[in-house]
Amino acid sequence: MKRIFSLIAGLACCLTAFAQQNLMGTAVELKSPDIHDDYSVTFRVYAPKAVSVRLTGDFLPHHVADNNGYVTEVPIWVDMTEGEGGIWEYTTGPLPAELYSYIFRVDGLPYADPSNQFRYRDMTVWTNWFLISREKGDDGYMYSANKVPHGNVSHVWYDSPTLGMSRRMSVYTPAGYENGKERYPVLYLCHGAGGDEDSWLDFGRAAQILDNMIAEGKAKPMIVVIPNGNAASAAKPGEWEAGLYQASMSGAPAPGVRAAASIPQAFPDVMNYVESHYRVLKGAANTAMCGLSMGGGHTFDVSRMYPGKIGYVGLFSGAQSVRQSPEYDKEVAAVFAAKPKLYYVACGTADPIFRISESFEKYLADHGYPHEVEWTDGAHTWKNWRHYLMHFAAKLFR
Amino acid sequence: MKRIFSLIAGLACCLTAFAQQNLMGTAVELKSPDIHDDYSVTFRVYAPKAVSVRLTGDFLPHHVADNNGYVTEVPIWVDMTEGEGGIWEYTTGPLPAELYSYIFRVDGLPYADPSNQFRYRDMTVWTNWFLISREKGDDGYMYSANKVPHGNVSHVWYDSPTLGMSRRMSVYTPAGYENGKERYPVLYLCHGAGGDEDSWLDFGRAAQILDNMIAEGKAKPMIVVIPNGNAASAAKPGEWEAGLYQASMSGAPAPGVRAAASIPQAFPDVMNYVESHYRVLKGAANTAMCGLSMGGGHTFDVSRMYPGKIGYVGLFSGAQSVRQSPEYDKEVAAVFAAKPKLYYVACGTADPIFRISESFEKYLADHGYPHEVEWTDGAHTWKNWRHYLMHFAAKLFR
Repeated sequence: MKRIFSLIAGLACCLTAFAQQNLMGTAVELKSPDIHDDYSVTFRVYAPKAVSVRLTGDFLPHHVADNNGYVTEVPIWVDMTEGEGGIWEYTTGPLPAELYSYIFRVDGLPYADPSNQFRYRDMTVWTNWFLISREKGDDGYMYSANKVPHGNVSHVWYDSPTLGMSRRMSVYTPAGYENGKERYPVLYLCHGAGGDEDSWLDFGRAAQILDNMIAEGKAKPMIVVIPNGNAASAAKPGEWEAGLYQASMSGAPAPGVRAAASIPQAFPDVMNYVESHYRVLKGAANTAMCGLSMGGGHTFDVSRMYPGKIGYVGLFSGAQSVRQSPEYDKEVAAVFAAKPKLYYVACGTADPIFRISESFEKYLADHGYPHEVEWTDGAHTWKNWRHYLMHFAAKLFR
Repeated sequence: MKRIFSLIAGLACCLTAFAQQNLMGTAVELKSPDIHDDYSVTFRVYAPKAVSVRLTGDFLPHHVADNNGYVTEVPIWVDMTEGEGGIWEYTTGPLPAELYSYIFRVDGLPYADPSNQFRYRDMTVWTNWFLISREKGDDGYMYSANKVPHGNVSHVWYDSPTLGMSRRMSVYTPAGYENGKERYPVLYLCHGAGGDEDSWLDFGRAAQILDNMIAEGKAKPMIVVIPNGNAASAAKPGEWEAGLYQASMSGAPAPGVRAAASIPQAFPDVMNYVESHYRVLKGAANTAMCGLSMGGGHTFDVSRMYPGKIGYVGLFSGAQSVRQSPEYDKEVAAVFAAKPKLYYVACGTADPIFRISESFEKYLADHGYPHEVEWTDGAHTWKNWRHYLMHFAAKLFR
């Protein structure tokens, strides 16, 4: 074996304290979050001059709050305790397996945990996150990167003639795709308002969920396509020519950009690209679509506008309304005349969209349209959407 | 055209104020950074209870500091001024075109700008960033996502028998790759210590640089492969089974993981995967490799261990030493006996690695080995490495 001469690599490791690094100045190294053997968690933050340090996170008790008509789960704030050397601490009780997010508040200012490099942006807000897994197969395990074969995730530009844009989507190909000749069924996975083609990969943990479900035989190997669901955007903020605009809940990009069509109208552009560039199994029996919130609305619209194209339909906290119109009745009738393999409606009972989901489900039931319904606890949260994705994916392509 | 029934999509937009969102509580909306017509920039932060708010960023004057032997550029801190309503401000002079990063310090605590959602992690530290472009073709333009054809970026798992792992690399395929039959040359692009397979895509802006250079005819269309350069890791933190360990400058993953071989020893695994899974042009004339710091050391070692394989070699602030040994002389002689098309050595004169680069370059000159050298201002910074990548890429495959 040849000798390696780059003995100064060790030195180079130290030299990497360059400009970006030095922007922080001297940091205090703390372990936070510190997950104990009983799955309680200690958070620590250095804030020697602070008068008040608080913590909130979705592992804490929450109340359901009505903010001007928008009902959400709001976790409580807890006080952290100052100890030696300006280090504030808080320790939870034992936590169930789950992906959790949290943030500090130092003298009133929201403050990300500098000791925890794991952060995701969700719409306009960055928070820290961590995982609790107690045993193989639990929710925290399913959201973790485990020692299983991993699918590849690509950011793919495709032509959308309907929207008059080159647009970006994320594509998950299951482990083995690159080395085989096999064709795979396709799941189109839609994000909500304020999200983008990365959302299901970040807090949605779609790649880990699919890796783990496929490895355990809980889901069939499938291609997962995550389009960008903002018709006036080509891609997530910063990835296209609109510049470094700040993401917003409206999904609106830089001023002056207007969409040429809707996302459901442009859906065939996505499907055409996928079916002509990947080894896919075609037809309704091999095609699934689901989405959360706005993406549930998109999924419903696609199922309605192209009856017989989507064999498995999943509406997660879906923004799909019931309309009193003969045209609506006719279109929904056409969806079910094509005999979808699965029409799945899920929502949390504390979700503000629950009344919409409930009336939609009642409409299906009243008309005798076969469907599956899953009402869970909880509100309009990623926790629910990750669960619905796991439940829906398990039913696909059987 | 069919009518769209999801009229409640607008409502859904508002409903997305769910758990993560609410972790922040009420936010004060500010424009920060606010880039003015003369390219001066105003930063704003809401901190009504703060006694002191400061700002640092790589657009400010810096001094070259020696921290225990590690010489780096350290930008100054400037005081921000409190105005109405607890909003602190600072305005720069007009800035040259560049990608800049910055962070606040509120009563001593490093504080990311909550109004700026663009953040990258570099080793252990998250900072905000923004771009200044004054005209088409300047550095800020080359780092921006412009209205040009975009290449795809994939996160690809490959088998590394030498390291005994499935490992993750990032692969950029140029615009048009997916729709053609053409074969492309390959650039292997190596990160530094503390980095991972995303580093060149984040602060390195490699995808935007290549998109823009190819669109303007300044670089030949090429595939760019960014392997993970930490031999004891399979992927960036959080993407493999070591769990949510915190990135460190040593590149060491969870305790107990030991590498079975070095990155240069395992390089043939990367090349074999790329050459068997992508439409590549083979041979030294179609193969380039470059890297920064530790990645420069890896590049040197690969060029030395496999003479004749890499036709274009680029060492950016590279951690490659000169050794007084006949074996070393013989190996470097073999590199140049194979007549590489380009051997490029670049470093900032304020970089602590400069003396290493300089002595290496002198070795090449003393032996009459053809090479190109580029000494620039500046230290061990991404600003320099982005420039070197542009300069090196322009010379490839001609």
